Amino acid sequence: MSLRCNGFRFGAAAAGIKKQSGALDVGLLACESVASAAAIFTQNRVKAAPVRLSQALLRKAGGRAQAIVVNSGNANACTGAAGTRDARQMAAAAAAAIGADAGQVLVASTGVIGVPLPMERVAAGIGAAAESLSADGFDAFAHAILTTDKRAKAAGRTVTIGGSKVTLIGCTKGAGMIAPNMATTLTFVATDARVAPRGLDAAIRAAVAPTFNAITVDGDTSTNDTLALLASGRAGKGKSGLAGADARRFTEALTDLLDELARALIGDGEGVHHVVRVCVRGARSDAAARKVAQRIANSPLVKTAIAGGDPNWGRILCAVGNAGVPIRPERIDLTLDDVAIARAGAAAPDFVEARAAEVMQRPTYDLVVDLHDGKAEARYLACDLSHGYVEINADYRT
Amino acid sequence: MSLRCNGFRFGAAAAGIKKQSGALDVGLLACESVASAAAIFTQNRVKAAPVRLSQALLRKAGGRAQAIVVNSGNANACTGAAGTRDARQMAAAAAAAIGADAGQVLVASTGVIGVPLPMERVAAGIGAAAESLSADGFDAFAHAILTTDKRAKAAGRTVTIGGSKVTLIGCTKGAGMIAPNMATTLTFVATDARVAPRGLDAAIRAAVAPTFNAITVDGDTSTNDTLALLASGRAGKGKSGLAGADARRFTEALTDLLDELARALIGDGEGVHHVVRVCVRGARSDAAARKVAQRIANSPLVKTAIAGGDPNWGRILCAVGNAGVPIRPERIDLTLDDVAIARAGAAAPDFVEARAAEVMQRPTYDLVVDLHDGKAEARYLACDLSHGYVEINADYRT
Repeated sequence: MSLRCNGFRFGAAAAGIKKQSGALDVGLLACESVASAAAIFTQNRVKAAPVRLSQALLRKAGGRAQAIVVNSGNANACTGAAGTRDARQMAAAAAAAIGADAGQVLVASTGVIGVPLPMERVAAGIGAAAESLSADGFDAFAHAILTTDKRAKAAGRTVTIGGSKVTLIGCTKGAGMIAPNMATTLTFVATDARVAPRGLDAAIRAAVAPTFNAITVDGDTSTNDTLALLASGRAGKGKSGLAGADARRFTEALTDLLDELARALIGDGEGVHHVVRVCVRGARSDAAARKVAQRIANSPLVKTAIAGGDPNWGRILCAVGNAGVPIRPERIDLTLDDVAIARAGAAAPDFVEARAAEVMQRPTYDLVVDLHDGKAEARYLACDLSHGYVEINADYRT
Repeated sequence: MSLRCNGFRFGAAAAGIKKQSGALDVGLLACESVASAAAIFTQNRVKAAPVRLSQALLRKAGGRAQAIVVNSGNANACTGAAGTRDARQMAAAAAAAIGADAGQVLVASTGVIGVPLPMERVAAGIGAAAESLSADGFDAFAHAILTTDKRAKAAGRTVTIGGSKVTLIGCTKGAGMIAPNMATTLTFVATDARVAPRGLDAAIRAAVAPTFNAITVDGDTSTNDTLALLASGRAGKGKSGLAGADARRFTEALTDLLDELARALIGDGEGVHHVVRVCVRGARSDAAARKVAQRIANSPLVKTAIAGGDPNWGRILCAVGNAGVPIRPERIDLTLDDVAIARAGAAAPDFVEARAAEVMQRPTYDLVVDLHDGKAEARYLACDLSHGYVEINADYRT
């Protein structure tokens, strides 16, 4: 059964932007009328033209948009003034095709950096995608945004808010690991919740912190990363503000949806054989917990140990010490799932290497770091640094 | 001809700490009397026992020491109270063997983390190393500090200061790339310069910034990194202060020596096929230039592109944008040796991919990033992230 959401139609087309013949590479997500909209954009200071355009549009329109047009195969990043023109032209073509205002169409691109968009093909693709618009088109849309992902990644949630059933559907495409010369992560969510722009913005910011902002493949943030959310308001009536328990329930459902998409994203990386949940406890502050978790998750030494299934806990302590926050090394405990590997900063008295190595064979496991220095916690999803990663990234264009 | 330095003798022994039978794994560097001493230690907050001991010793002795005792094969890191005791015992054994005060012996260890030192073997090795002490022993000493390095890395310089010929000799052992579950970089320098502790400390801090603090293999700083310098004072007479032009000349010679050792270190990494000098120009401040250079040098995407010889300049701009400093993307120029690859943030008008790919076949080349946003500059030595790195680090203990 296909994922649907009241008030939305989705389209896709194969425009020949990607090298693979017949691959879907233009997607269109359209609301029947102007929707509440919120988005999170890359923190990279080098921002692709579509990112700059969409940021400006959301600011100007006060958090409202009617559609999102996406192409894969070319990131329209580092393309100078021509890139800015091309992004605007994509918005205009999509707006014309669905009868909307160009100032209400968000634009996203993903693919190779530094190459001008083939605008004739893109324009033709947008027209074809508009003709294919259908309430059942989400699966095709989710395919059209992919680059070298192995599979489409889509999910849905329903939640009851104010007596009405609210639907959220989302899709994502990955990730440094898969195609790091691509620009890189795109995520789109449609919901029929009745929620004003300000509430939507608060929800997306709360939901992204423990999900998409707590995964790492290689620590590089791309020029194009975009997570956008449109709300049609078709579920429920009356005022469009979500408050109190309703707002919490909506944010929870959104977080849950993004969590599934983020896990799918990291698990789909070529070269990824293990997804490790790094759980840091007992930190002095949330910021400290987060820094430690992030440092472990990004350490090449830890990531190669994960790849090799080597319970080399000295590398983990070394990464903790490099996180740039005060710690007490002599208090730190390390655990892999149910196996203690270090206690009080030294080898656990009952440490049996074979048991730890056994845990590291599992496709997913928890690495728990207890700093015993406070009450704050943080989690991060990490993965292995394997031959597959080097293969894809060293040899990508040859 | 062996490297020698007035006032110093060097010894080495095979104590059976390393697995390889007969491999030198204990080294001793001894001055005929108490010398001026200065050192730089790891910034990692998890510090091995010998690092903590040596730091305390230098503080207490006001920058004076007579000897350095080193073992390889075991880092004595994350070894709890027993590790602290063992480090002290190493200093005491070395002091007894050469007739010095235990409070004048620096200790360094490198090798596996989290495993107690085999102290009987270590003590016997220190005795044997002391018996082998000789003015011609620097080569053996340089071998005794190695772990999985492919070759010993030693160098010397002479410089005339105040009419006297001053000698500096140094050796180093590597590096994350080679043995990242080892703890990792050790560097020792002996000089006969007549220089007080304060001057020595100033010289070492100035010399380390553009050399050992401007190289990166994988961005991980180990628990044991140590760079120590002893000055016997045998060259020259009179007051032991170096001032003005003399201090500058000494610092220059030291910087030059450390530069050679740092280059040897990064070039000796297994899996390293290309050493790339990342030169950042036109930054608003030294700190900004340094951050940009460091981010490029540590980016897995840039490093895999170097490995693959792929002139994928979008990855470089992406790393610049992730450096966390204000930049103007539309001004940035990128050059590989003499080949322009990007101008004003987009593909260079005359960009020919084949020419750039040709540069990237060279064993060493310059990657120049001009931010056109100020006058500050910084340099960093980077290397490739290759299959060899993953091989060694994923499979090291299996």
